[in-house]
Amino acid sequence: MAAGIKPSGALDVGLLVAERPLTWAGAFTRNPAAAECVNWNRAALGRRARALVVNSGNANACTGSAGRNTVEATAAATAGLIGCRVDEVLVCSTGPIGVPLDARLIETALPSAACSLGAEVEDFSRSLLTTDTFPKVSTSSASGASVIGVAKGAAMIAPNMATMLAFLGTDADVSSDDLRAAVDWAVDRSFNRLCVDGCESTNDSVLVLATGNGPKLGPQELRDGLLEVCSDLALKMARDAEGATKLVRVRIEGARSETHAVELGRAVARSDLWRAAAHGADPNWGRVLAAVGAVDRGLVVGTTSVAIDDELLFAKGEPCGLLAVAAAAMSGDEFTVTVTLDQGDAVAEVLTADLSEEYVTLNAEVTT
Amino acid sequence: MAAGIKPSGALDVGLLVAERPLTWAGAFTRNPAAAECVNWNRAALGRRARALVVNSGNANACTGSAGRNTVEATAAATAGLIGCRVDEVLVCSTGPIGVPLDARLIETALPSAACSLGAEVEDFSRSLLTTDTFPKVSTSSASGASVIGVAKGAAMIAPNMATMLAFLGTDADVSSDDLRAAVDWAVDRSFNRLCVDGCESTNDSVLVLATGNGPKLGPQELRDGLLEVCSDLALKMARDAEGATKLVRVRIEGARSETHAVELGRAVARSDLWRAAAHGADPNWGRVLAAVGAVDRGLVVGTTSVAIDDELLFAKGEPCGLLAVAAAAMSGDEFTVTVTLDQGDAVAEVLTADLSEEYVTLNAEVTT
Repeated sequence: MAAGIKPSGALDVGLLVAERPLTWAGAFTRNPAAAECVNWNRAALGRRARALVVNSGNANACTGSAGRNTVEATAAATAGLIGCRVDEVLVCSTGPIGVPLDARLIETALPSAACSLGAEVEDFSRSLLTTDTFPKVSTSSASGASVIGVAKGAAMIAPNMATMLAFLGTDADVSSDDLRAAVDWAVDRSFNRLCVDGCESTNDSVLVLATGNGPKLGPQELRDGLLEVCSDLALKMARDAEGATKLVRVRIEGARSETHAVELGRAVARSDLWRAAAHGADPNWGRVLAAVGAVDRGLVVGTTSVAIDDELLFAKGEPCGLLAVAAAAMSGDEFTVTVTLDQGDAVAEVLTADLSEEYVTLNAEVTT
Repeated sequence: MAAGIKPSGALDVGLLVAERPLTWAGAFTRNPAAAECVNWNRAALGRRARALVVNSGNANACTGSAGRNTVEATAAATAGLIGCRVDEVLVCSTGPIGVPLDARLIETALPSAACSLGAEVEDFSRSLLTTDTFPKVSTSSASGASVIGVAKGAAMIAPNMATMLAFLGTDADVSSDDLRAAVDWAVDRSFNRLCVDGCESTNDSVLVLATGNGPKLGPQELRDGLLEVCSDLALKMARDAEGATKLVRVRIEGARSETHAVELGRAVARSDLWRAAAHGADPNWGRVLAAVGAVDRGLVVGTTSVAIDDELLFAKGEPCGLLAVAAAAMSGDEFTVTVTLDQGDAVAEVLTADLSEEYVTLNAEVTT
């Protein structure tokens, strides 16, 4: 529904209703300035859920007791409408921080939203969007069960949780414990390996609901199913980051642990200088090495190499390769920068996007 | 001298010669991808220095054995010219990383540089500049001795060392130990409280030379004298950061320690979203709180306040104040954002600048 929260009149309230209470699990921002809706959902962990209400256009974060009241009023209105307990309603918000959100806008829109149940998932996914330019929907059935997910990203994209909302549903028949573990596992390997502007938000949430109508899945099958959808959504978020013109894969090889590899990957992924170079297709690999060295004080430059796609540009302590070949690789809409260390066997890939003038323009405007 | 390292033909080699070997001390980048000249100067710590050669337009970093040879050849040529030992020559470089630097360009320029000794300090300071738009010179005599400093900044401005070169001279009569301690103390309170794009460089160096021709200074007088000049240079660097249109002071009050206050100040200072908001004069204080919460997991939002200059925008867990007043304050060429915690008495101020489209344009161009 378009409830009027977004001044543009675009879709800004989405409602997801289950026929009966569902097992669910979630992962949330670790920011102590978390929005009241995040606190609300956290408190609901362990209970079953019947409905999810989401609004875009206002994060309802740092809005004090009025913000709390809005969350409660939204949940109560939804519960009254569909006939469930108030604590079976999950609430998510995304948009500017610190702007009062009038609960009546959502309450007024909810009845029409309830009448639209059964609409295309793309309409629901559109109701989440802020500065995203396209809706993000992914599906998988590789694990035997069906998994579907929708997400919004755009700005404030950083670990933990890559500042975003993602909602996944599956028909898998799984225990609450297995679901919780699988969500953490999949989020850690997907959204937490997406780092665009390094800014963590107050509203990040990934919620996964399971109907249990489908096949029983073992723990690893469930993880794989969720990871496939989460990874694809993360990729779509990187491609659609604010102002982004290209996807940049930062690959770290030869690290002493996967955690270490992810840490170094994030350091490169959040380097403004490197992301600006990526925007200009400038194979400025020195900025990559500088970013790695800024977090890995034990880096040995002489045994570290840097490559853009297949073109090795720095190895054995010396520049090498053809910058023109690397520049050509960077000119497309996707490329990989690989840093290879000599510290172990661990590998990780972190996704980011280039830093463009448009990112600045979008975020200098009052008020996204 | 203009040695032809910069394609523009601007000044790119500077030479500083002392009449006799001087006590000196330095602080350097902690990046393990440090340039060979940084390693060269580090090895000279504890010895006296007769000369300093600096070039801009090429960082001579990550350039392998050829880079080492260039540093040695530069020092040798200088030593031959002025009649000192090779290990009495300090060498600094700044510019793009990973580009071979031809030592002959510097060797050819050095004799003319030697003939120009005694020129205005501003000419020397110009020879350091990369994308800086004005030379940075500061002086102080408050401590009783004279202190003069020159610096270059522009991009890759982050702790530690705020990615920069700064050279200070004083006529103070001080011991080598006192000078070393005073440099660390002053750098920690000035350049290490400057954080623009969060990128640490491979060439950061602060070198301080003392002639001993002037008054004997106690340790604290020396520290105060150096700090005054370092702080002023840091301020000039923030004002002249790449693409910057305004200086932003990030002030943290009520922190549990000064280290903690500096850490939180840096977190706000390096937030792309907040810096873009600063550019657009958008008082988006939610981005400030989110940045603080991303590093202080114990933040209590209900006892934290945020103000722009004198306008309180968030206090006691609720938005307050007038955004229009804050926006007006942000429209000038300088403003302060203050975050007040309820954790202790410690205070710190970190300097940054707004993030503009021009920063991206400058750094997307091949190759700065």
